[in-house]
Amino acid sequence: MRSYHAALSSHSLHRIFSRFRHTLSSQPPADVILPMATAEDSLRQALADKQSTIDARGNAIRQLKSSGASKSEIDDAVKALNALKLEKTSIESQLKASISGDANGSVISRDAFRQAVVNTLERRLFYIPSFKIYRGVAGLYDYGPPGCAVKSNVLAFWRQHFVLEEDMLEVDCPCVTPEVVLKASGHVDKFTDLMVKDEKTGNCYRADHLLKDHCKDKLEKDLGISSEKAAELKHILAVLDDLSAEQLGAKIKEYGITAPDTKNPLSDPYPFNLMFQTSIGPSGVSTGYMRPETAQGIFVNFKDLYYYNGNKLPFAAAQIGQAFRNEISPRQGLLRVREFTLAEIEHFVDPDDKSHPKYSEVANLKFLMFPRDEQMSGQSAKKLCLGDAVSRGVVNNQTLAYFIGRVYLFLTRLGIDEERLRFRQHLPNEMAHYAADCWDAEIESSYGWIECVGIADRSAYDLRAHTDKSGVALVAQEKFAEPKEVEKLVITPVKKELGLAFKGNQKMVVEALEAMNEKEAMDMKAALESKGEVEFEVCTLQKTVTIKKNMVSISKEKKKEHQRVFTPSVIEPSFGIGRIIYCLYEHSFYMRPSKAGDEQLNVFRFPPLVAPIKCTVFPLVQNQQYEEVAKHISRSLTAAGISNKKDITGTSIGKRYARTDELGVPFAVTVDSTSSVTIRERDSKDQIRVSIEEVAAVIKDVSEGRSTWADILKKYPTHTSASADE
Amino acid sequence: MRSYHAALSSHSLHRIFSRFRHTLSSQPPADVILPMATAEDSLRQALADKQSTIDARGNAIRQLKSSGASKSEIDDAVKALNALKLEKTSIESQLKASISGDANGSVISRDAFRQAVVNTLERRLFYIPSFKIYRGVAGLYDYGPPGCAVKSNVLAFWRQHFVLEEDMLEVDCPCVTPEVVLKASGHVDKFTDLMVKDEKTGNCYRADHLLKDHCKDKLEKDLGISSEKAAELKHILAVLDDLSAEQLGAKIKEYGITAPDTKNPLSDPYPFNLMFQTSIGPSGVSTGYMRPETAQGIFVNFKDLYYYNGNKLPFAAAQIGQAFRNEISPRQGLLRVREFTLAEIEHFVDPDDKSHPKYSEVANLKFLMFPRDEQMSGQSAKKLCLGDAVSRGVVNNQTLAYFIGRVYLFLTRLGIDEERLRFRQHLPNEMAHYAADCWDAEIESSYGWIECVGIADRSAYDLRAHTDKSGVALVAQEKFAEPKEVEKLVITPVKKELGLAFKGNQKMVVEALEAMNEKEAMDMKAALESKGEVEFEVCTLQKTVTIKKNMVSISKEKKKEHQRVFTPSVIEPSFGIGRIIYCLYEHSFYMRPSKAGDEQLNVFRFPPLVAPIKCTVFPLVQNQQYEEVAKHISRSLTAAGISNKKDITGTSIGKRYARTDELGVPFAVTVDSTSSVTIRERDSKDQIRVSIEEVAAVIKDVSEGRSTWADILKKYPTHTSASADE
Repeated sequence: MRSYHAALSSHSLHRIFSRFRHTLSSQPPADVILPMATAEDSLRQALADKQSTIDARGNAIRQLKSSGASKSEIDDAVKALNALKLEKTSIESQLKASISGDANGSVISRDAFRQAVVNTLERRLFYIPSFKIYRGVAGLYDYGPPGCAVKSNVLAFWRQHFVLEEDMLEVDCPCVTPEVVLKASGHVDKFTDLMVKDEKTGNCYRADHLLKDHCKDKLEKDLGISSEKAAELKHILAVLDDLSAEQLGAKIKEYGITAPDTKNPLSDPYPFNLMFQTSIGPSGVSTGYMRPETAQGIFVNFKDLYYYNGNKLPFAAAQIGQAFRNEISPRQGLLRVREFTLAEIEHFVDPDDKSHPKYSEVANLKFLMFPRDEQMSGQSAKKLCLGDAVSRGVVNNQTLAYFIGRVYLFLTRLGIDEERLRFRQHLPNEMAHYAADCWDAEIESSYGWIECVGIADRSAYDLRAHTDKSGVALVAQEKFAEPKEVEKLVITPVKKELGLAFKGNQKMVVEALEAMNEKEAMDMKAALESKGEVEFEVCTLQKTVTIKKNMVSISKEKKKEHQRVFTPSVIEPSFGIGRIIYCLYEHSFYMRPSKAGDEQLNVFRFPPLVAPIKCTVFPLVQNQQYEEVAKHISRSLTAAGISNKKDITGTSIGKRYARTDELGVPFAVTVDSTSSVTIRERDSKDQIRVSIEEVAAVIKDVSEGRSTWADILKKYPTHTSASADE
Repeated sequence: MRSYHAALSSHSLHRIFSRFRHTLSSQPPADVILPMATAEDSLRQALADKQSTIDARGNAIRQLKSSGASKSEIDDAVKALNALKLEKTSIESQLKASISGDANGSVISRDAFRQAVVNTLERRLFYIPSFKIYRGVAGLYDYGPPGCAVKSNVLAFWRQHFVLEEDMLEVDCPCVTPEVVLKASGHVDKFTDLMVKDEKTGNCYRADHLLKDHCKDKLEKDLGISSEKAAELKHILAVLDDLSAEQLGAKIKEYGITAPDTKNPLSDPYPFNLMFQTSIGPSGVSTGYMRPETAQGIFVNFKDLYYYNGNKLPFAAAQIGQAFRNEISPRQGLLRVREFTLAEIEHFVDPDDKSHPKYSEVANLKFLMFPRDEQMSGQSAKKLCLGDAVSRGVVNNQTLAYFIGRVYLFLTRLGIDEERLRFRQHLPNEMAHYAADCWDAEIESSYGWIECVGIADRSAYDLRAHTDKSGVALVAQEKFAEPKEVEKLVITPVKKELGLAFKGNQKMVVEALEAMNEKEAMDMKAALESKGEVEFEVCTLQKTVTIKKNMVSISKEKKKEHQRVFTPSVIEPSFGIGRIIYCLYEHSFYMRPSKAGDEQLNVFRFPPLVAPIKCTVFPLVQNQQYEEVAKHISRSLTAAGISNKKDITGTSIGKRYARTDELGVPFAVTVDSTSSVTIRERDSKDQIRVSIEEVAAVIKDVSEGRSTWADILKKYPTHTSASADE
């Protein structure tokens, strides 16, 4: 398993909805690497000590009884024993709290918070389990009307912030992908999870999930286990992602883990490819897959895009689209799904020059960063200045840093709380051998820290893989202003002599000679000149042959070169749109008491940019004149491209405000006259009075960020409500 | 095959990228229904007559020769024969022109035009054959940067024009769909094309394509066939879509059609399902398909969406997304693809009231319509006033008409030429039995008239199908202001008696009794009362049973009802986005001579709304001051959300204009001073002079349609170029 980690694990997409790091979302990686806090260990020890004291006391009492001790003597002993048991109970609860990671019971409130958010989201159709009337399909969700509007706002802002502002080349490729492309990228062979089957029913489970659940259960519920045993289980949780099929299988056997539903025995773990497979065309011989990421569509188009960009580097291409992963058993609701929207950028850059012209625009940004060293030494994320991180060598290069900064700006402008956003650097064992540096934007939610954006410097890996497989050179040229004189190694095998000496093996010997690097070639040249022949290992023949002086000529020649040809490096920011949206929901949700104080009302504090509806319009009372005004305002908002909703039900104005707050609508226009109306802001509940002619323009300006509510408050008279509306 | 036509053929999606009407795009339907123009028939007759005259003369000359006639006599006869042969050649070319549908050779220019458009599109990366470096996959295309921008502009306008202006509920459902959903919709059983296989190589072909190609080839190339034979071939082309597998197979045998590549014999035709099949989850037992349309995602959510809309009708839901069809052998380039973007609307309405509140806004529109009767009687499409078409009963109802009008406005605002856009009504044999009325927006392109939008009143079919399959009632309620008294049929089977009489068959008999309609039930009641028993056919048992008086009670009861429960009708406008965009390319493309007159330059006359880039900015000469101004203007355009491109290459200004014209960029800003710049409009080549501070605002206004170029021309001084730029 380790081997394909190397090939794929730094590819952020694979990690975002990731089989590799699935344990991370509920515990920060530092926990995985480092020994757990010693508090828990000493509690376990204290519990074991207490238990043995209790056992000893119990024996003593039995002995007292059998030896005919006095009742008062026995009663005292029992009293002391009961006190000890009480102490044990107290240690047990401390231990439980310590295991659940929170002594103040905030775990429970975290679950309750999530439940409140999810209930609101589902009731107001932000999302709907797909195909619900047919009992749904695990891991598939629909975006209902407000969710769909939020998504399209997020994507529109992504296009403005990245594609337009960074002049990127956006492309749109199909989801159906022929096998050869995903063979080249490594997905066909390596994009797998280890699976076990119930040997009787054939039900499938993720092997690592079962082992993980077993270990966590033991740790959380079996308080009596020794601290050695606890340490072993914790170690397994820490290295879970690195276990081979054999190691996983051995542990499952050792712990006697059976199928959760039936308690039947399980098969040995074996790899299951996570791509949805299909067949292209009617013949059944052309295998295709639903793409597991959008990136490959960009890589295969590199040549055309480079040409389109005037054969100049750097440039970035971008793609927004659906991606698919046939998860074995999806968990974590909206965070781990079988079909999702990705937005990916591939920024192609000269590997010798990773500076960025707009780097200075982000260098002074300061936000939570969690470099590798801090993770390894058990510290927590700290606010760092991005420019310092680059100059100290913590972030590998300017371009990578530039994208980290742009991602930070993107997420916080959407409404992600900057205190619950950190950029975590990959640990050495998370990165592929070819990757230069990788950082994840992680957002804290009720599930823990969630990887939402991966930003990776993948070097030349992907373009090289497709060059090799397709035979089409995906390279860039740098034309020199003046031809440069370079010394070049020239190896010329003498085919006639080689043919006579090696017959059918000639070709492999020729190839091996030509493949020598400079040092090997110059060593051979020296040896041939001094000794006339040399032993030479030909890997492809798996043997050593004797090369004679007349079989090859080796020299260094000066050549004039007019250009340099190279494979560009690629820096890849990859966004899991659904995950970002879910975290945004959690960060935007709060509850506040109703005016009467008798109930808690839900509010989403979406910024206008992402709010599904920018404005509601309602007549204060049911009245034809007011309804006409409301219609007029709604029409003028629509004409200005501002999404809005009329509510002409007779419900109380307070209830109508509550309804719109729950959808995160930032502004509500209430028609209480035929000349001017009030505009109410969702979070402050402030109201201003604006004339009917101006209202659409005011809402448009503040919705599109040209003015703020504070600006508007200064400009228009405040309205103090006499209508007891809230 | 006819039977599933009934089930699916009026479903516009199935028709848009359609297996049923694939012949239509190159010939108007009138041709299919009606006998071909008699000109062709009489030419064929004339040709046959001429041939037999020539044959007779040939014989006569041979006789002359053998009878020893004089040389001058023979020479005269030969001269006369040659004159006849010339006449024959002339008739042949007339016939050829008649067959190709155009006597002026415009068929050739149509192909040349298409080639010019497609070359430009491909060279400028509007689209790219997908996975090109791996030699591509038939029927899959990427949108390159300008194509992707056009697509996202079209979709943004679609959202504004339909979702926002019509207050629709937009949803976003997965592409992966479980089998049960597509079983209910009919796709699993009926979404097929008839296929034949090369019996030796296994290569697959569409049976109707082979027969069609054979008939067309014969008609076009074999000028000697009789007019009877020609009539037969034409008849086959006309009824091609209605042929059963057996009929197709018989014709293929009769005509001796073989595999086109190998000339091997072919298998009998058999149905091939056009959905991409896959497996959901790891067990392999849960079949899924990539959705063939987005509509089903809306239907299965009807209940939630109706609730979201406050349990009120009418309302519309909309969805934009990918759809998939595993075509047997894709043809027609960008028009018939295996993966495409659909935008679909399902407007749910009370079947008893299909009026539309905004109908008056479209009633006065006048455009090309092609009603059923005009098609049947061989007339052509005419400009009709939409309101008249409704009042004359040509269009079934106001809501359907409202959407026809909105589609007309949508397409023409995008830049579709209204003279090459018609709304064609489905003929009776194209419509499903349940459909009330269907119209297609067809756009004329070099391929002929292309169905790009289907607008169908599908009645209650889809909601009923999912109600039946899922057991969840997808219905609406109309609450009565006052309870209404209604007479209701009550059928009460007496289970005890039925059980005694029918044992294991009791359940089927009970169900059959309960399923009787009013007439059947009242007839049975009368028979039971008069004779005491009655014969009753139970379909599910495939036999007739005897029902006695004590086995069932049938009565009519008066009941007070507080509401009416009914299945809404659905009116479905369904847009093939890729087809619309392709037609838009053709309608926008033109060529004009360069200033020097030495070459033809390509231009796309996209309206600013859809133009991939709104504005280019270039310094007139390479000069740091000008470049700074250009950068400043570009930044201010970007900040205003206007896509733009700097061109700081040293190329001549004329060449730079030509490059941007070919991408359809409507405005070009040329920096020729540090205080003011020129703005040049693409089609008129008019230039005005605007100060640097104003330029972004001017471009934004005219790009977003708040002002027109004509407005701007009046306001700013015209610039007459002295720089010989074009």
